[in-house]
Amino acid sequence: MAPKTAVILAAGLGTRMGKRPKGLIRVAGREILYRTLTLLMKNGVERFIIVTNERYGRLYRKFVERHGFPAEIVINPEPEKGNGHSLHLASGKVSGKFVLTVSDHVYGEDFIREALKGSGLIADRKPRWTDVGEATKVRVRDGRVKEIGKSLDDWDAVDTGFFVLDEGIFEVTEKLEIEREGDYPVSEVVKRAGLEVTFIDGLPWTDVDTPNDLKKARRMLVKTAVKGTGDGFISRHLNRRISTEISYLLAERVTPNGMTAITFALGMLSALLTLLSLPLAGILYQLSSILDGVDGELARAQLRTSRLGGYIDSLLDRYVDGAFLALLAYSTLTEPLWHLIALLALLGSVMVSYSTERFKAAFGRNAYAEIPSLRKLPGKRDERIFLTMLFLLYPVETSVKALLLLLTVITNLRVGLTAWLVWRKKG
Amino acid sequence: MAPKTAVILAAGLGTRMGKRPKGLIRVAGREILYRTLTLLMKNGVERFIIVTNERYGRLYRKFVERHGFPAEIVINPEPEKGNGHSLHLASGKVSGKFVLTVSDHVYGEDFIREALKGSGLIADRKPRWTDVGEATKVRVRDGRVKEIGKSLDDWDAVDTGFFVLDEGIFEVTEKLEIEREGDYPVSEVVKRAGLEVTFIDGLPWTDVDTPNDLKKARRMLVKTAVKGTGDGFISRHLNRRISTEISYLLAERVTPNGMTAITFALGMLSALLTLLSLPLAGILYQLSSILDGVDGELARAQLRTSRLGGYIDSLLDRYVDGAFLALLAYSTLTEPLWHLIALLALLGSVMVSYSTERFKAAFGRNAYAEIPSLRKLPGKRDERIFLTMLFLLYPVETSVKALLLLLTVITNLRVGLTAWLVWRKKG
Repeated sequence: MAPKTAVILAAGLGTRMGKRPKGLIRVAGREILYRTLTLLMKNGVERFIIVTNERYGRLYRKFVERHGFPAEIVINPEPEKGNGHSLHLASGKVSGKFVLTVSDHVYGEDFIREALKGSGLIADRKPRWTDVGEATKVRVRDGRVKEIGKSLDDWDAVDTGFFVLDEGIFEVTEKLEIEREGDYPVSEVVKRAGLEVTFIDGLPWTDVDTPNDLKKARRMLVKTAVKGTGDGFISRHLNRRISTEISYLLAERVTPNGMTAITFALGMLSALLTLLSLPLAGILYQLSSILDGVDGELARAQLRTSRLGGYIDSLLDRYVDGAFLALLAYSTLTEPLWHLIALLALLGSVMVSYSTERFKAAFGRNAYAEIPSLRKLPGKRDERIFLTMLFLLYPVETSVKALLLLLTVITNLRVGLTAWLVWRKKG
Repeated sequence: MAPKTAVILAAGLGTRMGKRPKGLIRVAGREILYRTLTLLMKNGVERFIIVTNERYGRLYRKFVERHGFPAEIVINPEPEKGNGHSLHLASGKVSGKFVLTVSDHVYGEDFIREALKGSGLIADRKPRWTDVGEATKVRVRDGRVKEIGKSLDDWDAVDTGFFVLDEGIFEVTEKLEIEREGDYPVSEVVKRAGLEVTFIDGLPWTDVDTPNDLKKARRMLVKTAVKGTGDGFISRHLNRRISTEISYLLAERVTPNGMTAITFALGMLSALLTLLSLPLAGILYQLSSILDGVDGELARAQLRTSRLGGYIDSLLDRYVDGAFLALLAYSTLTEPLWHLIALLALLGSVMVSYSTERFKAAFGRNAYAEIPSLRKLPGKRDERIFLTMLFLLYPVETSVKALLLLLTVITNLRVGLTAWLVWRKKG
């Protein structure tokens, strides 16, 4: 069973990041603690004890009230001593299993979900996002902590600052309180308890000590925010590389909905541009296709995903594609037969999306998750738009016609194959 | 809690319907008992006791095996006696609450669902589908049966042949077994027990005594098979009246998938016909729109609904609409501007459906159920097709252009309003 309570150590008086308490520093538009608390709640934690110092108490109280978190603020009057005392102050306020974590680590959703299944110290043998040099390392023997410290030469994994403990831990802090007169770090508690170690490797987490760490944390959040179930070849190999860089730049200042609006405007502009210059129109269209990934990335990195956002974004994408094809046909074609083909290309383009969304409406599951071979079919939006850009670089009438014919065949064939795969799976 | 066991009385030697046991006569492609058992199972019943006679035993056993129903066959060696004895034969095989029903009544899904919530005799004060003259009536006093019989002058409701009983009923049959030497009808048991009465009025059920009753039952199943959540004005007031008559005619011989194929073929034919005669094309298109309701009606009346069927049907409808508009534009338009408008009309037509299906994919609920005001927006498929037929009756170029312009405006406006309503509801 997942722990219902979490203790957050937030009494540290770190000075390298300015006067604001670290837990209230924003990364990708959200306070570090907002992330930790929100993700823990999403995974079953119902109650928080935040241990902080006298100086930060008011700020944390305001933060907790503003967001309505079910949290109690506990003041440590001697924050200059080791943070083991902060942990000890939570004794009597928790029972059974509980989470212990810190206010200056940024965790991704996948990390929290997996970490909660572990017990003892959660350690990472392959830390991907954090600076190992600065990190606390652990040496493990027989599944338990043997040594812990920043300057261990021989270590097995890195301490993630996340623990799943039992109230029994307070027997250890009780003894240390007396022996050390209240001045001892959590690492001392961990070593003394010979804590169990759970390895969770390579998932997103990092600690934040310097302004540069903050950038790294933002990059981590954006890079791990790619959902990608419906990504085509061009998305995977080109668009996502660029869109995550853009998301990184915009993560602190642009909301997902704002980005949806910008992307839609650019897409519509590219459609209008077909009346003036086809190569430019194609390039802007491809640019809008790259940007199309950004709203989703921002939403996930900022913990602002919404089904409404996804819904509106979907409708707008269809209108951009429709407008582009319609105006492209209008500005270049004369014969009715080619207009007919443009119509079928438009129909096919919308139906590619319709055929997977309608699947979800009917069966309640993502089509790509249910039928993985769907991912291999060509004709997704990112691929169509990239093709469009290529064909419009040297725009003669033949290239437009070839493009429309190609789109008609690819998209409608894809829809037919989708229906066939669905039939085979569900029939 | 819903009963887990049902006793089915199927020992009657009725002769008006030929040699086949009544429970195995098909209505809308399914044996009467197939319906009853399937619907009961759908609502939580897990076990059946079918009491029949020596002659029918083998047939019922084969039926039960073929469909894998969890049913036990009990033989009544004296079927010529009253059916109270058949009920009595089930004693010792059921405990607690159980359903008692008969093999010659056809029940609709809504009836079964509601009846299972009642207790005692389920009676109908406003029988809509059955012949009251032939029916067994009940007089009710203080919520209990006072009198029961076919020829009551003063009655309150009609016996639906459906009971929710308790094992205590076998104390009554025990006494009657002795008093009447095993020859007494269920109605005698009901009266003697002074059974509680639950009124369930106007829901679909009917008994089948004659070949004519069979037709009535089929009509009932087809008429109550209209789902209609997404029906527009034309569907409600015109198409459904005709489509249910067609479903009535085809209910015994055509499967829903077969009907989907026929409807698709006719729709595509109507699209091709735009190249020859616009009025004929429009009329055939409207005809295919009427037929478009039949597959769903057949599926529900025949208990053959499938999400796959709905999925494929949806894709095919979009292709029929696309083909019709594409070929209509191809065969009548010359100026690029009007081709542009045709493209936008096509885009809007597909997007009307996309905007509600995508809603279901995102929010997991039917858009019309969640946002009832959506139903009032014009522009649904049945309305668009009817308009198309009207405009093509006197096909001059102007009328085609007017149609395309109208479709462009109505459909895209509808999509915009849909998005706005969704935003208001979910934002």
